[in-house]
Amino acid sequence: MTTIGIVYHSRTGNTKRMAEEVVRGIEESEYDVTAVLKTAEETDEDELLDWEGIIVGSPTYYGLPSAPVKDLFDRSVTHHGELEGKVGGAFTSAANRGGGNETTIVALVEMMLIHGMIVQGTSKKDHYGPVALGKPDERALEGSRELGKRVAKLCNNLYG
Amino acid sequence: MTTIGIVYHSRTGNTKRMAEEVVRGIEESEYDVTAVLKTAEETDEDELLDWEGIIVGSPTYYGLPSAPVKDLFDRSVTHHGELEGKVGGAFTSAANRGGGNETTIVALVEMMLIHGMIVQGTSKKDHYGPVALGKPDERALEGSRELGKRVAKLCNNLYG
Amino acid sequence: MTTIGIVYHSRTGNTKRMAEEVVRGIEESEYDVTAVLKTAEETDEDELLDWEGIIVGSPTYYGLPSAPVKDLFDRSVTHHGELEGKVGGAFTSAANRGGGNETTIVALVEMMLIHGMIVQGTSKKDHYGPVALGKPDERALEGSRELGKRVAKLCNNLYG
Amino acid sequence: MTTIGIVYHSRTGNTKRMAEEVVRGIEESEYDVTAVLKTAEETDEDELLDWEGIIVGSPTYYGLPSAPVKDLFDRSVTHHGELEGKVGGAFTSAANRGGGNETTIVALVEMMLIHGMIVQGTSKKDHYGPVALGKPDERALEGSRELGKRVAKLCNNLYG
Repeated sequence: MTTIGIVYHSRTGNTKRMAEEVVRGIEESEYDVTAVLKTAEETDEDELLDWEGIIVGSPTYYGLPSAPVKDLFDRSVTHHGELEGKVGGAFTSAANRGGGNETTIVALVEMMLIHGMIVQGTSKKDHYGPVALGKPDERALEGSRELGKRVAKLCNNLYG
Repeated sequence: MTTIGIVYHSRTGNTKRMAEEVVRGIEESEYDVTAVLKTAEETDEDELLDWEGIIVGSPTYYGLPSAPVKDLFDRSVTHHGELEGKVGGAFTSAANRGGGNETTIVALVEMMLIHGMIVQGTSKKDHYGPVALGKPDERALEGSRELGKRVAKLCNNLYG
Repeated sequence: MTTIGIVYHSRTGNTKRMAEEVVRGIEESEYDVTAVLKTAEETDEDELLDWEGIIVGSPTYYGLPSAPVKDLFDRSVTHHGELEGKVGGAFTSAANRGGGNETTIVALVEMMLIHGMIVQGTSKKDHYGPVALGKPDERALEGSRELGKRVAKLCNNLYG
Repeated sequence: MTTIGIVYHSRTGNTKRMAEEVVRGIEESEYDVTAVLKTAEETDEDELLDWEGIIVGSPTYYGLPSAPVKDLFDRSVTHHGELEGKVGGAFTSAANRGGGNETTIVALVEMMLIHGMIVQGTSKKDHYGPVALGKPDERALEGSRELGKRVAKLCNNLYG
């Protein structure tokens, strides 16, 4: 059974809303993949080992992932090397265009690459991963579903 | 006399439009600073030495400055060390939000830091530097003028 | 037949040396993958379509890929969307530790993600991609071979 | 009186060692600038207002600042806009070359730019800010002292 963990931190509910839509994209995909939705704070670093895919969502705080999301990655060092070859993906919710949303997603991707994970971009719209500005609009929700599908497809191709 | 060079590359005219507005911001500022507007292609690397401030604008091509802008920085290696302490600033015009505009500006800033230059962000709106999505709207034009003023003020404080 | 193009720009020969070692890593791998070695300048953007994997090497010039490498990506816009799902990898040769080598590789990765490509990091040593400081030492050459193997394996898993 | 706060997080003592050397660089400089050394955990966000310069050091954890350092910036949102025009600087201690040290420093710089702060690179050696690989060697310690001097000089020119 292929499983994707969707881990997020959300204070206002915007990132949570995107996370739910990533789950929907996975569940609506044609692939036999299970989605597990958790907050970064409640995610134990050991759980990362159970998932073939890990999608992380964070609010954009000063152009980077928030401290609770960073803390999960800091804790993940216990399993350094064991996430090699897993599939990753990232999304963010920001207050403002040009306000650090891209650098937040690139930062999440960098952490995944350091774990030896596999990340795919998209040639359409939000290339690094979906970005919401304020309350997620239909564009951001659609991008979130597409991220879920993209990671599900890649997990299926590599692990299905 | 304090001088700021505004160097840009533009194919569609969008980045050029922003560059003109950066010039306007400098000229409307209260500081005794002269603006020189040039394309990246026509800028000789020796000219960089003549300016106290260097503001660079590029279209967003694959999340980075375009090759003609990159080529100017590559050529600038002749004067490596001689731009130390100059004031920098960056702006970009992109097709799409989430499409690489922030990473383009951060890339421009990185090149300036490697030259030992001084760069200031802004706590308002486009933090790293102004971004236009498609044809520059009033928000992007205002951000461009503010960039001009910000660099003019810093040049004046350091060199005036 | 699965093919990986290794495209590089090299002035001093250091990046070329790494490129040759990436080829060796591919050829020594257990996978049925062909390597094609070309300079960025001689690579036509149409050729990118022929390869399942694209590995790009650049010298570190001001913390970013050199203008000839950037120019290839700028030209690749003709095929935007058509590189979706291809496997990417990146390497660089720099003068100096802390001198922009990581940001050069991350910049290459960003361009690949914007094309919708798939990139894997490594949990060992040079996480984003191999880095040589000056003339490539054994560490950099080994990292280059490992990059070749890593991309060959991923190409084989997805396309073999 | 011009004051620079040096804020760091350190578990192994390597980043702390660099922080102490940054302080030494400030105190040995010719400028009338006071250095205040604190850990990120003990720094109240209100204190950031008291300093004309803010230099932040972090270990490299997954290519980014550690969670305690990120948490300080997250808390600093209370004073968003009030750090505008302050002078910043960054340093890091990493396990490995190519292991995320540059991206850690660039991430720190990005947060400072979002606050509207002023950051200067250097054309010599570690361009974005000093990097130690493991226990700081003389190169890293000298780079730390130079960072202190550079920020002290810029604070003096702008605020002295």
